Amino acid sequence: MHIVDINCDMGESFGSYKMGRDEEILDHITSANIACGFHAGDPATMRKTVRMALEKNVGLGVHPGLQDLQGFGRRDINISPQEAYDLIVYQIGALYAFVKSEGGKLQHVKPHGALFNMASKSAPLSEAIAEAVYKVDPELILFGLAGSELVKAGRKIGLRSANEVFSDRTYQEDGSLTSRRESNALITDHTAAVNQVIRMVKEGKVTSVQGTDVSIEANTICIHGDGESALEFAQYIPKALNESGIQVAKISEFLK
Amino acid sequence: MHIVDINCDMGESFGSYKMGRDEEILDHITSANIACGFHAGDPATMRKTVRMALEKNVGLGVHPGLQDLQGFGRRDINISPQEAYDLIVYQIGALYAFVKSEGGKLQHVKPHGALFNMASKSAPLSEAIAEAVYKVDPELILFGLAGSELVKAGRKIGLRSANEVFSDRTYQEDGSLTSRRESNALITDHTAAVNQVIRMVKEGKVTSVQGTDVSIEANTICIHGDGESALEFAQYIPKALNESGIQVAKISEFLK
Amino acid sequence: MHIVDINCDMGESFGSYKMGRDEEILDHITSANIACGFHAGDPATMRKTVRMALEKNVGLGVHPGLQDLQGFGRRDINISPQEAYDLIVYQIGALYAFVKSEGGKLQHVKPHGALFNMASKSAPLSEAIAEAVYKVDPELILFGLAGSELVKAGRKIGLRSANEVFSDRTYQEDGSLTSRRESNALITDHTAAVNQVIRMVKEGKVTSVQGTDVSIEANTICIHGDGESALEFAQYIPKALNESGIQVAKISEFLK
Amino acid sequence: MHIVDINCDMGESFGSYKMGRDEEILDHITSANIACGFHAGDPATMRKTVRMALEKNVGLGVHPGLQDLQGFGRRDINISPQEAYDLIVYQIGALYAFVKSEGGKLQHVKPHGALFNMASKSAPLSEAIAEAVYKVDPELILFGLAGSELVKAGRKIGLRSANEVFSDRTYQEDGSLTSRRESNALITDHTAAVNQVIRMVKEGKVTSVQGTDVSIEANTICIHGDGESALEFAQYIPKALNESGIQVAKISEFLK
Repeated sequence: MHIVDINCDMGESFGSYKMGRDEEILDHITSANIACGFHAGDPATMRKTVRMALEKNVGLGVHPGLQDLQGFGRRDINISPQEAYDLIVYQIGALYAFVKSEGGKLQHVKPHGALFNMASKSAPLSEAIAEAVYKVDPELILFGLAGSELVKAGRKIGLRSANEVFSDRTYQEDGSLTSRRESNALITDHTAAVNQVIRMVKEGKVTSVQGTDVSIEANTICIHGDGESALEFAQYIPKALNESGIQVAKISEFLK
Repeated sequence: MHIVDINCDMGESFGSYKMGRDEEILDHITSANIACGFHAGDPATMRKTVRMALEKNVGLGVHPGLQDLQGFGRRDINISPQEAYDLIVYQIGALYAFVKSEGGKLQHVKPHGALFNMASKSAPLSEAIAEAVYKVDPELILFGLAGSELVKAGRKIGLRSANEVFSDRTYQEDGSLTSRRESNALITDHTAAVNQVIRMVKEGKVTSVQGTDVSIEANTICIHGDGESALEFAQYIPKALNESGIQVAKISEFLK
Repeated sequence: MHIVDINCDMGESFGSYKMGRDEEILDHITSANIACGFHAGDPATMRKTVRMALEKNVGLGVHPGLQDLQGFGRRDINISPQEAYDLIVYQIGALYAFVKSEGGKLQHVKPHGALFNMASKSAPLSEAIAEAVYKVDPELILFGLAGSELVKAGRKIGLRSANEVFSDRTYQEDGSLTSRRESNALITDHTAAVNQVIRMVKEGKVTSVQGTDVSIEANTICIHGDGESALEFAQYIPKALNESGIQVAKISEFLK
Repeated sequence: MHIVDINCDMGESFGSYKMGRDEEILDHITSANIACGFHAGDPATMRKTVRMALEKNVGLGVHPGLQDLQGFGRRDINISPQEAYDLIVYQIGALYAFVKSEGGKLQHVKPHGALFNMASKSAPLSEAIAEAVYKVDPELILFGLAGSELVKAGRKIGLRSANEVFSDRTYQEDGSLTSRRESNALITDHTAAVNQVIRMVKEGKVTSVQGTDVSIEANTICIHGDGESALEFAQYIPKALNESGIQVAKISEFLK
């Protein structure tokens, strides 16, 4: 029996600035990563997004980012592990309070953008992040790039940790994502994207751009909420997974 | 038997900017109001302040402010009750996570500066703040200006609510504080300041600048952590209260 | 011979957040009010907006706002006149440098949102703003609500000052705008909006919601760049003005 | 005849947070690098600092930094050259307006902290910064680490560019500064610090930590305004330089 979670970034609007089609996307995913005001989002948006996700029975996740609203948290900032620890604790707490006041329960934490990427390759940064999550609530699930330092650090400290895979990105033979600077980084064809995911979930393998097979564990699939065909793909992927015999469910319902 | 709490604002440093003599003041107070990054403070300062207050067994309080670091949260911003609700929830959560990860428990919430002053006079703002506190954690104690709308709103929704008095400020015959713009707003003599407090605690009365007696309930006394004689006064006041037969204790230990 | 300027707010995007249809609107206006990063805008957006406005020969204006990105500069903050002076100087300078580096010349300054509204009714605030403009560059034109304190303060210090009127807002019999909280604040019919403007320009009069005629001087008309019919109205208004015999030109070309 | 400029960072206070002993330090330096609100400083502080520097006839410099108030602009952020260009233009403009309104004239630009360090080693970043300065005002002098990419980029585009040396830092045999992480990075003895500077100015040489002589050009000496002995050293250094026959003057008075 194969089973997988589908997650998407949410709550990225800020003040008068609107971003994403959250309400519609929420109908098709099982876990939501909710921005916490550092790289995107604001208190009002957090409240509304938590409420919508609860109504649609989607898993509630913290999406902490670097404090860089102008750069949308996508520019590396060389913070220390202690600084990473502190900003993770802060942002988990901020979202926790909205979830608590709305009668829900936090499910997971997924670092955003540059923080996610820096942690993937840095054990000290990943250990600081995992410790922050664990000390606030050891029941939380930590999301990291499949096979990355972040997943390792999560497991080491005792957190349930989810390997995240991308449907629309190609992989290198060392298991890393092809850089967005390369022309072959993205998979734009929906069928090809889903087929890559199906193989990752069923066989634990992905074909690298070099043509070799790479082992990969897939617990949750990241899809994107913006871009022109985002909603279309969000509608398509759970259906295609189901048809191939893969069950789609909230990560907290099946991850060991 | 008379009993009172002594509170002080804490954790107001930001990045490279240092403010206050927190570590020394903590030896003389029973409740700490910790800034949460909106008007002062940052994640690292919050963690350090929580840790210090826990070590010294001081009650841990959230000190949420308006998002105005440059104005130190002291400039009125005409936010809606909903905006007040949202920023209170957010900041309680942010501090909660540091308290939780350090093994402590939150005791109270005291709005800061302009938010405190605006709420004192506005029932809708006070009700939004009280609701935010109640929905995140109904066990939290709400601090408000003695007799103000904030204390009323707290009691109405079912929160234990503390009447706060000022030792170093004079009062008007309607029970409000004399505006800082007036020349007689401040009491700079330590003996006079303590005597005002002793009378408020023992007799439930304060002499207004108009010369009349005003009824006032005093559950917690606010002292200040900056200024030249802050530490000196912080050392003096609990001793003077004890000598006059008033017990000084954490608000959570005695407030009904 | 009747002549009037048409201005619109521009450059309100921020980082990944897009707002407004600046490029298309610029084809139909004569003066652009460019956000400077306090309530909206960022350095990259400022550079691009200045370049576009220069290419289309539109007058370049500074659009300084309160430092409140989350509230889009629309929430009153009770700043002092000195604080208003300082933030006006700062923002004029920031835009000046982009205009200088792109080979252009600043034309005007129009305060934004809550700052504009607060200044309209406050002589001290208006005098501080006018002084800031004058001391940076006495050749700049100051935009204010027609007949307001801001226009008076500008003229008093020796700045050319433009009376701004709104095509899509109704007026009270004292010449002020009907509050947006009232149901009859907005004029949504394009023909009615243009007819109001034509009468203001030609006759110096506007019919108040109370039914009386109010004297008003109209040097520049404010139109809006967002909203569904913004572009449509931007295309319509200069044509309709021309057809009624009113010339549309940059404020610097005709204001005494 | 030997001649050199002495510069110091200034105007780093922010809102209620005070930093540095600017007024006293200004008596002993010839050029001030004034923060512009991104890594430190705010509009009110900028105005006051410009006014003080003008009264004391000190050269007025822009001190643009990364937008990271919490990190004081000391954390690397991987911005693009275009982003560097934009934030330099913006900050030059902001300070320009205060200088203009106070009746003064800008003298130089010195990037701050992480931006200064990143530019020292990156030609594309340095070229973007130099272009920004040149396009706003080609008369401005650009300060860079002696022999760095920033000085080279400034000269290439046609700016007068000043080689900056440090009195209190040791040098590597390739001419770079010893990293602050090394135990021998700092020179704490005032006599040794001044002797290093005297040799750099008179002989164009510095002894590296490896013991070899390194060629270095010294147009301006950086001293620090905070720290316990900052003021003492600021008083000592111009006197010691004069006694060794070196003239101390504003960079704009002698740099070719």
